Amino acid sequence: MLAEIITIGDELLIGQVIDTNSAFIAKQLNKIGVSVYQVTSIQDDKDHILKALKEAEIRVDIIILTGGLGPTKDDITKKTIAKYFDDTLVKDESVLDNIEHLWKNYVGGKLLQVNIDQSLVPSKSTVLMNKLGTAPGMWFDKDDKTFVSLPGVPYEMGALIEYKVIPKLKEKYSLPFILHKTLLIYGIGESALAARIEAWEDALPEYIRLAYLPNLGKMRLRLSAKGFDEGQLKASVDKEIDKVLPLIQDKFFGFEDEEGSAEIIIAKQLTKLGKTLAIAESCTGGNLAEQFTKNSGASAYFNGGVVTYSTQSKMNVLGVSKEVINEYSVVSGQVAESMASNSLKLFNSDFAVATTGNAGPSKGESDAEVGTVFIGIANKNGVYSEKFNLGNHRIKVINKAVNKALEMLLKEIFKN
Amino acid sequence: MLAEIITIGDELLIGQVIDTNSAFIAKQLNKIGVSVYQVTSIQDDKDHILKALKEAEIRVDIIILTGGLGPTKDDITKKTIAKYFDDTLVKDESVLDNIEHLWKNYVGGKLLQVNIDQSLVPSKSTVLMNKLGTAPGMWFDKDDKTFVSLPGVPYEMGALIEYKVIPKLKEKYSLPFILHKTLLIYGIGESALAARIEAWEDALPEYIRLAYLPNLGKMRLRLSAKGFDEGQLKASVDKEIDKVLPLIQDKFFGFEDEEGSAEIIIAKQLTKLGKTLAIAESCTGGNLAEQFTKNSGASAYFNGGVVTYSTQSKMNVLGVSKEVINEYSVVSGQVAESMASNSLKLFNSDFAVATTGNAGPSKGESDAEVGTVFIGIANKNGVYSEKFNLGNHRIKVINKAVNKALEMLLKEIFKN
Repeated sequence: MLAEIITIGDELLIGQVIDTNSAFIAKQLNKIGVSVYQVTSIQDDKDHILKALKEAEIRVDIIILTGGLGPTKDDITKKTIAKYFDDTLVKDESVLDNIEHLWKNYVGGKLLQVNIDQSLVPSKSTVLMNKLGTAPGMWFDKDDKTFVSLPGVPYEMGALIEYKVIPKLKEKYSLPFILHKTLLIYGIGESALAARIEAWEDALPEYIRLAYLPNLGKMRLRLSAKGFDEGQLKASVDKEIDKVLPLIQDKFFGFEDEEGSAEIIIAKQLTKLGKTLAIAESCTGGNLAEQFTKNSGASAYFNGGVVTYSTQSKMNVLGVSKEVINEYSVVSGQVAESMASNSLKLFNSDFAVATTGNAGPSKGESDAEVGTVFIGIANKNGVYSEKFNLGNHRIKVINKAVNKALEMLLKEIFKN
Repeated sequence: MLAEIITIGDELLIGQVIDTNSAFIAKQLNKIGVSVYQVTSIQDDKDHILKALKEAEIRVDIIILTGGLGPTKDDITKKTIAKYFDDTLVKDESVLDNIEHLWKNYVGGKLLQVNIDQSLVPSKSTVLMNKLGTAPGMWFDKDDKTFVSLPGVPYEMGALIEYKVIPKLKEKYSLPFILHKTLLIYGIGESALAARIEAWEDALPEYIRLAYLPNLGKMRLRLSAKGFDEGQLKASVDKEIDKVLPLIQDKFFGFEDEEGSAEIIIAKQLTKLGKTLAIAESCTGGNLAEQFTKNSGASAYFNGGVVTYSTQSKMNVLGVSKEVINEYSVVSGQVAESMASNSLKLFNSDFAVATTGNAGPSKGESDAEVGTVFIGIANKNGVYSEKFNLGNHRIKVINKAVNKALEMLLKEIFKN
């Protein structure tokens, strides 16, 4: 069973908005055994939408469109899809009720005509009620094929996919099972990893595919298996993993959770141990703390953090001594260690991680070269730090420093 | 002049990786007057790549592929593109030199055969040397059409686009000028905004397109103009903006910078005024600080922040009084104001912003409903706070709280 995702919106084609919808939809479809054959992003343009629909209908069984359902003049998806099905728009009272309800509760005042018009839907469609917004989702059956049109706002689209589209697809089609298992690996390059596991990779059964996903110092190795016998697939994948783990055990840190990676493994382990974490950041500027706080349950183990961006704040807030800064400079192992130790105490935590470095583009309050980052790790027994040289691209330096800090924290927490 | 971007990789089609490359490339192409007609994401599959190339060649003038150039077995783009041009792979000595240089400096040890093989390129291609990685970019001329194949690693792709592809495209084609101007608007919904500016929108000249880009409480309104006379385009767009501003002046906060939005406007204004900022976060967990620190120049105005996630840390680190927390609860205007005032002092800053709330999914150390967020703003003259109800989706609550904090900070800074 194949699907195509068509994301519609001029903002995608000029690069103003990154398309996160198609990755979300692809993940949900994969879980129920629907493979995404292609993702196509096109403009809010009638002829282009019609052409994309026609081409997709030849290629795949399930076509999911997002975007272009808003109340404004640039939103033309609904009219265009009605034309594609040679259909007319009719008012749907349940949609109008939903719009009136949302308007009363969240906007107030007189309902606008453009919003009333959002209750018009193609007569051949089944409405997928959107409780989070005024644009309804729409489902079309055309013989064995399915067309679904959803609003582009990520959380509205997300709720409709999860609670309406996925259940309806499972009902309509008999679907195979797709299993992904992803190994999280640190400290080895793509080629060296490939060389280590070559014999194993070559002997993989045909229904298991392997992918290398390198990203700024961390590596994910993904096995994907597809078939109708869930039990047999799981057993095969587990068997292959048992074979490959001994080859990479010094670089392997865990299986990637569906929604995250190192930070999830750290969070789970800290929660399990009943231990707590503090974070002191300079060059990573809040990004490291965010890796933890974006996930629910962080309050179980994350006591807090500081972003001591200025040298002054490293002294005033974290109590790093002026002498240490003067002697070693603010970008140094000594300062990273002092930040880690002091934040451990300040937040009364079991583990602390600290970053100090120069992410560029120009040199800051230290003479350190752009890309130099020190990461310190403290626990109640002591403190240590490592130095890294992470290149000269600001965002890359920050993200690599975050990955390195997570890697060091992983090692530290699993050592204990 | 039209382009299509083809991103290749199984990881995109299963939703494991979000495609950020195409937005980056689209933005760069737009700047030189090349419109992106379509973005197509496909699997690492020979037949699919060949088909996508064939279809794109009919649709557009310039085809840019990313991905599938790594050293491992799942990377098949290079072989496939050679087949498409009925070409053979030949060793390129300059690429091999680059690979050897990178290997010596960043990896060490014996060069692997899979990496030596990365110096093989189609004989009809022009190499775009990739100084940041072992996979070279490749450029193909086919009559008036251009095909470019780039590695999928974002920063390698980015450097090749910026320093090799864009200059070569400007040399090869006579390109029109595309101008985008984006207005940043807070505190009004899409429909209400559309109703306000309807007459103006209807009277826009045909070569200026308008798009509404709503996102979690903030709204961007984008005008796009295209033509060959740069001066005339700029004048027309400015004229239209002069007409629309009086209609929305109570909701308008500035023009979006090419690379950012509210945080960039705040950063510029603070730097201009020589004023500094401190941030105290609870529910936003570092995300708010990161909005500022991800951009260069933050050290000019950002003194630092705290992520006081636990109630204990709000007392110990920020000095919020136990009595206030007991009387009003940790999610309250009083605590937000105390966090803001105390962080202002702690970081010796001119402005401070603080967040405390419950992002969910379950209630935390307070009885506050999921989605309740208080934001406090302090300056040397005083402090105030506002209460928001931001729904019950964790990531959405966090991002909306960040947007609300930026909105309040914008208003505060421009008031002074």
